[in-house]
Formats: sequence, structure tokens, C-alpha cells
Amino acid sequence: MQRSKIITLLTDFGQQDGYVAAMKGVILGLHPNANLIDLTHEVEPQNVQAGAFLLQTHFRCFPVGTVHLAVVDPGVGSARAALAGRAAGHFFVAPDNGLLDFCLDLSERQVVRLTQNKFWREPVSSTFHGRDIFAPVAAHLARGELLQNLGELFQLQRRLPAFETRLVGKTLRGQVVYIDRFGNLISNISAQQLREFSRDQPITISLAEHLIGGLCQTYAEVPPDSPLALIGSFGFLEIGVNRGNARRRFDARPGDPVNIELGQII
Amino acid sequence: MQRSKIITLLTDFGQQDGYVAAMKGVILGLHPNANLIDLTHEVEPQNVQAGAFLLQTHFRCFPVGTVHLAVVDPGVGSARAALAGRAAGHFFVAPDNGLLDFCLDLSERQVVRLTQNKFWREPVSSTFHGRDIFAPVAAHLARGELLQNLGELFQLQRRLPAFETRLVGKTLRGQVVYIDRFGNLISNISAQQLREFSRDQPITISLAEHLIGGLCQTYAEVPPDSPLALIGSFGFLEIGVNRGNARRRFDARPGDPVNIELGQII
Amino acid sequence: MQRSKIITLLTDFGQQDGYVAAMKGVILGLHPNANLIDLTHEVEPQNVQAGAFLLQTHFRCFPVGTVHLAVVDPGVGSARAALAGRAAGHFFVAPDNGLLDFCLDLSERQVVRLTQNKFWREPVSSTFHGRDIFAPVAAHLARGELLQNLGELFQLQRRLPAFETRLVGKTLRGQVVYIDRFGNLISNISAQQLREFSRDQPITISLAEHLIGGLCQTYAEVPPDSPLALIGSFGFLEIGVNRGNARRRFDARPGDPVNIELGQII
Repeated sequence: MQRSKIITLLTDFGQQDGYVAAMKGVILGLHPNANLIDLTHEVEPQNVQAGAFLLQTHFRCFPVGTVHLAVVDPGVGSARAALAGRAAGHFFVAPDNGLLDFCLDLSERQVVRLTQNKFWREPVSSTFHGRDIFAPVAAHLARGELLQNLGELFQLQRRLPAFETRLVGKTLRGQVVYIDRFGNLISNISAQQLREFSRDQPITISLAEHLIGGLCQTYAEVPPDSPLALIGSFGFLEIGVNRGNARRRFDARPGDPVNIELGQII
Repeated sequence: MQRSKIITLLTDFGQQDGYVAAMKGVILGLHPNANLIDLTHEVEPQNVQAGAFLLQTHFRCFPVGTVHLAVVDPGVGSARAALAGRAAGHFFVAPDNGLLDFCLDLSERQVVRLTQNKFWREPVSSTFHGRDIFAPVAAHLARGELLQNLGELFQLQRRLPAFETRLVGKTLRGQVVYIDRFGNLISNISAQQLREFSRDQPITISLAEHLIGGLCQTYAEVPPDSPLALIGSFGFLEIGVNRGNARRRFDARPGDPVNIELGQII
Repeated sequence: MQRSKIITLLTDFGQQDGYVAAMKGVILGLHPNANLIDLTHEVEPQNVQAGAFLLQTHFRCFPVGTVHLAVVDPGVGSARAALAGRAAGHFFVAPDNGLLDFCLDLSERQVVRLTQNKFWREPVSSTFHGRDIFAPVAAHLARGELLQNLGELFQLQRRLPAFETRLVGKTLRGQVVYIDRFGNLISNISAQQLREFSRDQPITISLAEHLIGGLCQTYAEVPPDSPLALIGSFGFLEIGVNRGNARRRFDARPGDPVNIELGQII
């Protein structure tokens, strides 16, 4: 399968220390022509769920053949497996803790448990597998190494509680799964689910006890400082405030219920 | 006109979400050899004025032929135009909201309103034109696409209130227009204006009601923790505190008056 | 000596202003094929000690022939020298304020004081030598310029108080020298010092008045929220909290004493 030379990096390492640079140095030592692109390093420390959401919603922005390196790894040094895999034309390298759960829904999936330590940095520290295992494996993958050479075939299994939407009576119930820098509340209700539920009838959206209203197309449809709901740029229903911050307005956090009902209440 | 392969990115997206990475992925899909350089992504959300100041004062550090992509876009989804242009040998891609006001003072200016959607990502979301319009257009420009192919000629007009200095009696009056991470207060009074005003005579600089003193050459000219005024690295008068933080010292904010008088008061 | 095309950048400039981008633009104008990698820009403003620690512990992650550009420069504009040097196969460009103290312990060291202003940006501002002197010199070095052409041979001398460990009675005494984003407390006690001190006997580690316990191999050896001590990924003893934050737990800061005693107290 083709490789794009691009390696994206997603971690919870932040940028004030040198941990990200250490991984990049290791990669460039093995693959000087790699094109290193930060996906983000500001995942909340050890929040695997948030890291998985960002990886799932962003990997397709990159060309087919990109290697996505994701290290949010509270279990480093424990018995959790280290994985590399491919799905939907992209490659992924990550610990086996749920970061790759979304790959279970992707086509042409192949995953290996990393066991071939000739592809690792020597010696392997017990606290920084990002630098010593995942980064060099990503470099080898991006250079064209075959997945099957890196380890043993592995049966990927769901590790995190799936965010699920449910139809309860006449209400479609979801949750806030991610909150971005602007305070937008991104739910797990996809555009497609919403279409199937509403069948083009008017709907009313609420966040916990707060009535938000119908579905908008753009922020500019409501006055400044007014809340609204729309399908966000990654295809999920999100709740925002025009030129404002919905997180602060509603004191919202991940897990808050988002409910959709048929009919126009306001 | 020559292209440098470099695309700079300036946004208010921050770095904790994946919005910047999404734009980079789109660009690299169209232009795998683009060299992506972050100008900054920490513009205060929706502060077009601050974004414009940073773009204006930094674009010339890059080689001629660089494409500068700037997305601070509170009006996304509204009727504001999307622009691409060139001036002073550089290319710019941005919404029409004042980010490019400074180009009005540059030579060899040509601006188009983006209308040719064959250069855009398909489909265009209503909330993320950075990824769907501006990023792919920047990629095409950097690959050598002609401006006139991207849209229709457009008459650039000032969108933001200009920061202006005024001579009132014998006082040159300006304002703080930007405050940096070190707490330095950068004014809109340029080195050239100051020279024309002072004609090499001593001057006295004040910030609101605070007397700062004369003009220094370096921070080290005053003792630690003392305030001073000097011509900063981008050619504007700035007020700082040696090894300290002028923003905190004076509880300063953008818009605070900076006044220059002839004569040495202290 | 070979060059890797990589230039790393370490500063205290932060990322909200354009100072880092200004340096990158200058470098790319001189060396379009340079591969620019951020080491970090979040060194605490003017904290030379922290910058030196990060540079010392990370430069070896990069390939031999890399140029490391480090600008934490409270003395900019004063008489402090500007340096370029090489050691252990790597190149360094930095002000003479202690950032390069660690090079005194490295082999094949050669340092020059930068005096050849034909390699600098013109004009040189008095407040931003990062952009005007250090960045262009790093670009020329990475392109293959010889050190001796950049300035005059210079005798590197220690500028910062050395962090030293001491054997006091039967106690090995060190200090916390760096605290990372996860709140891990990294000491100046190296794995080798610890081995020589303990000679494989059990030891007891304490942080100020807090008893931490023996030496672990991984975070997962203690229950969540429990403190532990281990050899961190850069070869120094560090104190952490499994899935927690040791800085907050112990209200710790750089300089706090870390003591090792022979024998198992708990």
C-alpha cells in the first residue's frame, strides 16, 4: 500500500516539555524525509476518549497512506499491547487502550501487536514507549515496512465504553463527547442519524435542561450571544453560541445529555 | 510570480483541537511538497485586529513568494467574501474582514474574491471555511495557480477602524495595539514617525498616566524591574519592563494611550 | 562534519506571538530545505536553567549533524556574547548565559563567539537577536558553513550554578531540577549515580519531608494516585504519582531536596 511520507502525531504530552520533540528526533533519525504534522498534543492528560475522538474525526483530512501516531498512554509499562494497523487506507500506531476503537468500523482493517523489537529504540525505557517503540515503528511504517513484519496479527477489540445514541420513546438521546477551544459542544449524534430521525420534519434540540431550538446552518443565523445547534464541520450535531462560548454559558461538560424531539417547540 | 513552497498559517483555532491539522491535511493532499509553518494559532478567538497586526508585522520575515493563510473568521457562513491576493511579492488568503487591511498600503496589489469552487473542498461546510475553502486555495496558489483563475477581481477596502496616531498640540498620541507573551506593550507609533516628530531632540514617553521616560536602545539600559520604552523588533515603539512584565505592572490593555512629548521631563 | 538539514528551536517565546515564526522565516529565506523542528517554546520566560536542562536531555534524540538553536536570552542587547559551537557531533547556537554549560562535559567541543556580521540579518535590532543573529547563523551552519568562519574561538565557561548531588553521611542528596506537564518531579540524580550509591541494595527515597519509598520500574507498579520514584526516560530519578500529579500532591517546586538512603524503611 502506498505511503504519503506524512506522519501525524497526537499525544497528551503538551508542548512545554520536550517529549514531542524527542519522538520527532527519533523518527527523523530513521526516516529523514518524513513530513511530521502535529494533530494535537493538548489532549487532556490520560483522556483516551478525547484522543480517540480527535483521531477518528481528523485522520481522513490527510492523504491516503499517512501514518497516524497516537500516544495517550496511561498504561505505559503495564501489560497493555502496543499496536500498529491499517484501515481505510491509513496507518495507525497506538497503545491498545481504545484509541483505535473507531477502526472497528473501518474497511480493510489489519492490526498487529508490536513484538519485533529490532524496530524499536534500544534500550526501551519503561515510561516512554512513545519515543522508544511507537515513534520508531511509525518511522519504519512510513518508509514502507510491511505491517506483518512488525509483529503478530491481532484481533482488535473495543476498549472504551462506546458513546451511543438511543431512541427513547420519541426522543433521540445522545451526549456531549468533546468540547473545543471555542466552547462548542460536539455531540455523538451524526448528521445521518439526525436525518433518519427527523425525516425533514422540524425538530427541537435541548442540552440537559436547556432548550436550544431548531437546527441552523451557520452561526450567523442567530444574533450574537445566542445559542444554536448545527451540524459541525466533522458531521456531528454541535451546540454553540454565536460569537460566544457554549461551555461557559451552560457550564457544560462531556457526558451532558443532548436530546432531539420531533416538532417545533419554540 | 515565483512561489516559495512555504505556506504560513495564522488562526485563532488554538492547538488543543484538530482544526489546524485538518487544514494542513487538506493542503498536503493537494500539494505534498508544501512547507507548512505556523505563524500562530493563539490569536484571541475572533480578534481580527490582533490577527491583522501579527500578519502585517511578520509576513516580510518570509521569502518572497510565500503564501500566508490567515483565518480569524467570526463571520464564517455569513455573506462576507473569501479573498486571495498578492502584494509586495507575497500571497495572502483570508476572509474579507480586515485581516488584509494592511495590504492597502502595499505595492503591486491584486485581490480576487474566491468564486471558483472547483478549487474548494467538496462539500463546503458552513462552519469551517478554513478547511474547505481557504486551505485548498492556499495549496493551489502555492503550487502556482494564477490568482485570476481563483475568482473575480475585487476592490479591497478597509474593514477595521485604522489605528491612527495624531499630533495634538505638541503631543504625538498613539495607542497600545498589541501585547505580547512577555507583557511588552506594542504601540502603533513607528520608528519613522518618532524620528520625524523628535528630530533628534530628547523626548518623554508616557503610558496613560504613567511616566515612562526617554527612549532606550536595549532592555539592559535600565535596572531589572524598571520600565522603559524602545523601538521594538518590528519597528514600533514599545513599552516594557526589564526582566519583568509591563502588562501586569501597568494593568495595561490594547487601546491604552501612548503619548510622546518633546523635552526631557525626568 | 555532516549536517542533517534539521534545525531544532528552543525558546521562551511562547506560541501566541509571531516571534518563533519570524525566526523560521529568516532561516527558510537562507536555507529553503531546512527541516525546522520545535523542541519547545514554552520555557518559562527567562528561565535559562530550565532551557538548558531541556536542551541537554533532548539533543541526542536527533541525528548527528543537527543544529540546535536555543534562545532564552534575558541579556539580549547587553554585552553577553553570542555563541555557536559543536560537541558530540551536534551543533548549537545560543547566547553565552549558561544554555550551553552542559557542553563542557561533551567530547570534541569547539565554540566560537559570533563576530562575523555578514552572516547576520541586516539591520540587527537591539531586542531580537533570535531573529537577527542566532537564526541566520543557524541557517548558515545547517547549510554547511564552517564554525571558524562565523567568529573567533571562544573558551566556554560555566555560567549557571551547577546542580550538584552530594554524599552527606550515608545520604545521597539531590534536588528537583525540572517539573514536566504531568507534574513529574525530575531530579539531578542520574541512574548511574544511583547505581554506584546503592550497589543493588534496597534504598529509600524521600522528597523534602515526604517519604516516597523504594525504586520502581513503571508507574503501573503502584496503585492509582500513589506516589512512586523511578528512573525516568532521560536517565534521571524522578518522582511521580500513578495517573496523578506529583507537583500538586507535594506542592513541589524546582530546588526541593530529593534524598536517598540505604535500606528499606517501608
